[in-house]
Amino acid sequence: MSRFSLNQWTTKRWSVAEVVDGCVRHGVEAVGLWRQDVAAQGLEESVKLVADAGLRVSSLCRGGFLTTGSPEALEDNRRAIDEAAALGAACLVMVVGGLPGVVPGEPLGTFSRDLPAARERVAEALAELAPYAGERGVRLALEPLHPMYCADRAVLSTLGQALDLAEPHPAEQVGVVVDTFHVWWDPQVLDQIARAAGRIASYQVCDFLSPLPADVLLGRGVMGDGVIDFAPLTDAVAAAGYTGDVEVEIFNADLWAADPDEVLARVRTAFGALIGV
Amino acid sequence: MSRFSLNQWTTKRWSVAEVVDGCVRHGVEAVGLWRQDVAAQGLEESVKLVADAGLRVSSLCRGGFLTTGSPEALEDNRRAIDEAAALGAACLVMVVGGLPGVVPGEPLGTFSRDLPAARERVAEALAELAPYAGERGVRLALEPLHPMYCADRAVLSTLGQALDLAEPHPAEQVGVVVDTFHVWWDPQVLDQIARAAGRIASYQVCDFLSPLPADVLLGRGVMGDGVIDFAPLTDAVAAAGYTGDVEVEIFNADLWAADPDEVLARVRTAFGALIGV
Repeated sequence: MSRFSLNQWTTKRWSVAEVVDGCVRHGVEAVGLWRQDVAAQGLEESVKLVADAGLRVSSLCRGGFLTTGSPEALEDNRRAIDEAAALGAACLVMVVGGLPGVVPGEPLGTFSRDLPAARERVAEALAELAPYAGERGVRLALEPLHPMYCADRAVLSTLGQALDLAEPHPAEQVGVVVDTFHVWWDPQVLDQIARAAGRIASYQVCDFLSPLPADVLLGRGVMGDGVIDFAPLTDAVAAAGYTGDVEVEIFNADLWAADPDEVLARVRTAFGALIGV
Repeated sequence: MSRFSLNQWTTKRWSVAEVVDGCVRHGVEAVGLWRQDVAAQGLEESVKLVADAGLRVSSLCRGGFLTTGSPEALEDNRRAIDEAAALGAACLVMVVGGLPGVVPGEPLGTFSRDLPAARERVAEALAELAPYAGERGVRLALEPLHPMYCADRAVLSTLGQALDLAEPHPAEQVGVVVDTFHVWWDPQVLDQIARAAGRIASYQVCDFLSPLPADVLLGRGVMGDGVIDFAPLTDAVAAAGYTGDVEVEIFNADLWAADPDEVLARVRTAFGALIGV
């Protein structure tokens, strides 16, 4: 269980101080943090908290939202890279953004339907950001999101597409995230995980619920509560040479309403039974 | 507009007799029918209704649900093939089924997480059914469904995967459906449509809504109401040599509550503006 990492939003109510404390109490060695929570705690204070606790920061969530091509988005991503460097995070998770103008959860207003152009803008932004990240020792981790989020959250929809996007860049600057929830359905997933050898920056696990809840963003479940067969994916990630932390990241209304200590205990048990690294 | 076809479930309240009458009144030349409605009307009566009206049957929906490997499923698909033959349908749409035991909309009970095995069972069933269809002049049309339905409705998730599955069989026995709702997000979609030349059995159009409604099955909208850029897909389908009917198939709670004549008029207008074949 030494590679178990708790993504902070699995226990969403916990601040950085609380999640660090929770990890220490539960014997968890690594944590995935979120930028807005780090900002609320203060970056310096957050750096000190994780250092004093001896925790690894398996990822910082998240950069991205690069499909509009705005200078502000690039600037915000540079700040995110600086924060990841300060925290010594193993990677900065990049959720690249949806169609320009489409806002998650809101009715469509003015937006662009040009999906290839949005994808091209991500490639352009990456060319700007990768060297900046490289200079600061930060690895960008491109996260393909399930295709149901293509319009509103990420035009990056498959692991193969993420690897195509990563390939022009040094592997230490641009890697990919393998998140079971997002990729389990893909007929090419095992081949693409093998292809990702040397590029896997993060392995995230959570289950895919069926039926999906009304808000599909919260369709994630504790391992074993959904439809995913984890062993082939975990084995493929191991065969591709990934030896880093394995992050449990679950957005789920019931978990968020529950006591975070109980949630952490529960996901640790499920992790031991179904992931077991 | 001569290639416009109304899928019966766009105007779901209409029986076969009513949808045939509606098509005649609106000058629509082709219709996609559903098996349960044909059964309610009576197969012979349905055959007579479409023949007397001079309508083309662009598809019969649907065969499939082959992932359990049960003899009953094969038998039901043979009946569906017979019905498609009787109706002179251009194809029998195949929704292959989800993980064995997963029931759409119901909590998980006993089921299998073995996705590769479920996919293999579809290939095996197809080997049984394709010759049977060929003998009756029926073309099976494999429909890749959006990956959000992988667990509960179709383990066939991409056009590329559908073509891999179709390839061992003669093109006149096994084709594929290109449904904009299901494939618009796919980074490979234009290449795969080109690859599908000679295999496209049906082109179905409807939009992808954002945000998705609580029941994702009903996330389909009238063309223009969602996020899809239709022209590149329609052009690619044309470039691949498809000259058949273009079916409008929209599952949408608001449309289903509306007056079917108004719905038909509305989708015809949208079709003229955004598809225009």
